[in-house]
Formats: sequence, C-alpha cells, structure tokens
Amino acid sequence: MSGEFELIEAITAELPTNDRVTLGAGDDAAALRLEGEAVVSTDVLVENVHFKRAWSSAHDVGRKSVAVNVSDIEAMGAIPVAVVVALAFPKDLDRQWVLDFAAGVKQECATANVALVGGDLSSSSIIVVNVTALGDLAGRRPVTRAGARPGDIVAVRGSLGWSAAGLVALSRGFRSPKDVVRAALCPDVPYGQGVVAAEAGATAMMDVSDGLIQDLGHLARRSGVAIDVRSDTLEVADPMQRVGAATGKDPLGFVLDGGEDYALVATFPRPADVPCGWRVVGEVREGAGVTVDGEPYEAHGWDHLA
Amino acid sequence: MSGEFELIEAITAELPTNDRVTLGAGDDAAALRLEGEAVVSTDVLVENVHFKRAWSSAHDVGRKSVAVNVSDIEAMGAIPVAVVVALAFPKDLDRQWVLDFAAGVKQECATANVALVGGDLSSSSIIVVNVTALGDLAGRRPVTRAGARPGDIVAVRGSLGWSAAGLVALSRGFRSPKDVVRAALCPDVPYGQGVVAAEAGATAMMDVSDGLIQDLGHLARRSGVAIDVRSDTLEVADPMQRVGAATGKDPLGFVLDGGEDYALVATFPRPADVPCGWRVVGEVREGAGVTVDGEPYEAHGWDHLA
Repeated sequence: MSGEFELIEAITAELPTNDRVTLGAGDDAAALRLEGEAVVSTDVLVENVHFKRAWSSAHDVGRKSVAVNVSDIEAMGAIPVAVVVALAFPKDLDRQWVLDFAAGVKQECATANVALVGGDLSSSSIIVVNVTALGDLAGRRPVTRAGARPGDIVAVRGSLGWSAAGLVALSRGFRSPKDVVRAALCPDVPYGQGVVAAEAGATAMMDVSDGLIQDLGHLARRSGVAIDVRSDTLEVADPMQRVGAATGKDPLGFVLDGGEDYALVATFPRPADVPCGWRVVGEVREGAGVTVDGEPYEAHGWDHLA
Repeated sequence: MSGEFELIEAITAELPTNDRVTLGAGDDAAALRLEGEAVVSTDVLVENVHFKRAWSSAHDVGRKSVAVNVSDIEAMGAIPVAVVVALAFPKDLDRQWVLDFAAGVKQECATANVALVGGDLSSSSIIVVNVTALGDLAGRRPVTRAGARPGDIVAVRGSLGWSAAGLVALSRGFRSPKDVVRAALCPDVPYGQGVVAAEAGATAMMDVSDGLIQDLGHLARRSGVAIDVRSDTLEVADPMQRVGAATGKDPLGFVLDGGEDYALVATFPRPADVPCGWRVVGEVREGAGVTVDGEPYEAHGWDHLA
C-alpha cells in the first residue's frame, strides 16, 4: 500500500463535478453555491453488515454507497448536488480494490449528476464506507415524512423486493436470477423523481430502505395517519416468483418487507397528482398503523443492529 | 444492546440546534438555510488508529470527532453550522459507551454552536466514527490554501505540539502532564477564529492536523510560494519541555512536527492585518518548500496509512 497522499492523488483524478461546485476537493473543505436551502444526509456501510466482499465487487460497493445516500436527498424533493466519501480499509487490502471502489463512486456520481467534493482515507481492520450527500431545495420546502393526510394517494416509483430476493439467492450460493442479484449488489435509484414528486405536490415522501411496510409505518406515525396498501397493485415480477418457488418463500413478502431497493414512496392529494411512472399502491386513512388489504400485517424489515 | 430505533431515540433527545436549521434530525435528511455558499468536509476516526479506548473516554471520542471536523470549516473562513455523525460499533459494546459518546458529540456541538442534524448507526467489529461538517460562507469567498503571496505574514491561532507531547506521555504509560494529555484526547479548536481571519483579509488558511511544517508544506505548494518559520517565535510551553526532558525528545519537534492540535495557520498581507490573539511565526517568500530559520527542515507529520 502506498501512502495516503499518493493514493488520494490517484483517486482524485477527474472527479465528477457540476455547476454548483465553486471549490472542489483538495482544500480543507469544498464550497457549493446553492439556490435554496441545503439538505444533508449521511450513511455508513460496513463490511459484512451492509456488503460482503465475496458477493460485491469494489465497484458495486462504491456505486451502492453513493446511491443509498443520494436516495435520501431525492426523498426530500431536493436536487442532489454533491457527496463526500470516507473510506477506512485494511493496510493489506489490494490497492486495486480501492481504485475500483473509487471508480464505482465516480460512476454513480455521474449517473446521479452529483459532484464528488471531498473525502477521507484511513486504515482500519475492516472496510467501512461513509457517504454524506448534499442537496439543494432550490426554493421549495422539503417534503418530509409528516405531511400525509387522510384521503391522500400512496404511490411508489422504483423497484420493490428485487434486492431482498437477490439476497436470498446469494445466501443460497446462487448468482441468478441475474436481475435480482444485480439489484441486491447495487440499487437502481430513480434519480430525479424526488423533484418530480415535489413539483407534483407530494404531501409526504421517503425512500424505501427498510421495507415498504416498515417504512410506511414510519411515515404513518410521523404524519399521524393510517395507511392501507392494496396487494393487487404490487408487481411480483418473474425473477422474484422464481426465487420464491426455489426457496419456499412467499414472493409477495419480498415486495412488502424487502429493504435496500431505494424506491421512493410518496403521498399525493389526488389521483391526478400522481406523476407519470409512479404506481399507486394504497391510500391514507384516519387512524394509525399500516394495513394490507385492510388487514393487519406483521412487517419485519431490516434492523442493522438486530 | 437494544435495537437501532430505541438507541437512536435516546441519542436524539435534546439535540443541539441553531437558527440556520429549518428541519432537524429524524427525516430522510435535514434542511438548513444558509446565507452564502455552503462548505462541507468529512473525517473518519477509527479505533486504534485515531483513538484508543484505553486512553480516550467515549466522551473524549465524541468531542474530538466533532472538533477535528468543524476545524476544517473554520479553516475556510466559514461559520460552522451543522454536523452529521455516523457511528459503527460492536454489538457487545456497552450501551453506556454509545450514550457517553453522544454526550461528548453534543457538548462539542454546543461549544462550537453547531447543530447535530443527522446520523447513522451500524454494527461493526471495531468502533468507527464519521463526522461531516457544514458551514456557511455568509457572502464571503472561501479562504483556500492557494492564496499566499510572497511578503505575506504567517500567523497561528491555537496550540501547537501539545497533542504530540501528550501522545508521547500516554504511550509511555503516563497520564500527565495533564494539560498535554488532555490536548491529546481532545483538541481545543479556536472556534470563531476562522471567520476572524477571513474578515481580517487572510490570503490563505488551513488547520494544522498533520504538523505545522508538513501542513505549511501543503499550503506553500498550493500557493506556489516558499515559507520560512522562525523558531524563536514558537512557544515551547513548560509541559512540553517536561515531556521532552523525560523522554529525551527535542520539545521543539512537538511544535514543528506534532499533529492533531487543530490550530489555524493563515497568511496575511501586512503585520497590521494579523488579528488579536494570533501569533506571527514566519513569512512567505518566493520559491518553494518550507524552511525553519532559513534552513531546510525534515518534517515527519502524520500519515494515517503509513
């Protein structure tokens, strides 16, 4: 392993940037010119908790670490602007792993049109990645979890259940079906749709990281409402059906409980407000808690400390 | 260990805030209203690399993790506004360690008048802390490392060498002299002085994290200048002299090479520009590199991957 400064030099070549960056990486801090309020969120990814090197390439880990964090900025209805990335890793880790990780970070930044404006490197006994993302509300108010009102429509943009089905396949030693395994290694975040939802008048929004039912539970509690999900609106795609059939699991469980797909879920006052490409999956009611087809549902979700 | 959500609830009680925060912790992201450009910096602290549990209390680690990061915001001449803090820790770690860590984070936030607006928790085999700090340039341009010009005065605000002397004492099994040991466990960042320097017309600035000579080397290279430090301007305080005498080390080495004190070093066009409380330690010249009393100096500094 070369020294910190040499590696930083290799990593910081050709950083993704955008027109809000007024001072990029390389100084004590970076500077950004925002139009409206700043939004900020942070996520940590730990080896053997959030990813396994046996399953995920360094490039996957780089992409995912950016994707899951930028997803939080989308979920506020903000324009993602920039990320800073810290990486702690063992001294004997192959230098190529770090370079591939950086390439994955840069690729996902380019896809999301966010700039990579800073970071930190350290040694560590295991790999730990931390990404903090910044967004620009550009004159709008943030779309929080607390604004859903009885009568609102619940709609989703993005995949549900694919990552969970992929994890089940991986944990049984399979690398297929390819689409769900791919989803488990790096989510396909619906970039740009957070702003679309905000402009369409979304009353509440969040990203689905812990599972649809569990996350809607957070949204319902914060909004002081009940939410009912209609199971016949949920697509259980063919690869999920195949994983379900091969493992004896109900594939609808992947869709309702599976985390890590980073879809966006939002509430809208009227059906006509729901943007193109969003799927209506339920409705907001008076009361508390989340039901499926009007019945109580026992959600499991993901608890990274459990 | 209780679950993630219960612990988050305990930690997020009575979070430090300020008038720039428009949406605090608890949603997908927090929101801040800034007057000028945003500045952002991130730092990772790893157990047994940046701190040892045998030496540092959880409260110390919490304070230090905020201090070292907010120091980077000061170094741009910005007003520190907010931090997000991610903590990864072993499942069997005493819950009290996490609560004490959070108390240290909150205390340092209060001292620096920064808000704690978000975070993340994860399990991990070792303790890893990541802090990202945000600041507000409030209409000014950032003070970078690249603006020093020949003829400028070099001045320092804050301590130099105390932390390094404290580390030497700790590594020999001593808990005294108390002042330097205290400095090694948590730096005393000169909060507010970054803005003071910017308003006084600082042409370049950075914080001293890797050692005065090494960090001035970065500043000199980025500015395309040489810097000469006058050793007779550097205070070698009594506790450092005592550690030097007890260990056979030249105490001036602590001051010139010792990292982790997080003083601010800046350059100013004229002696009259140097703000009250700042100590002139050298001057900017044409050329390249850093000299001490006109002679070459071999700096060692700190390389966290070495």
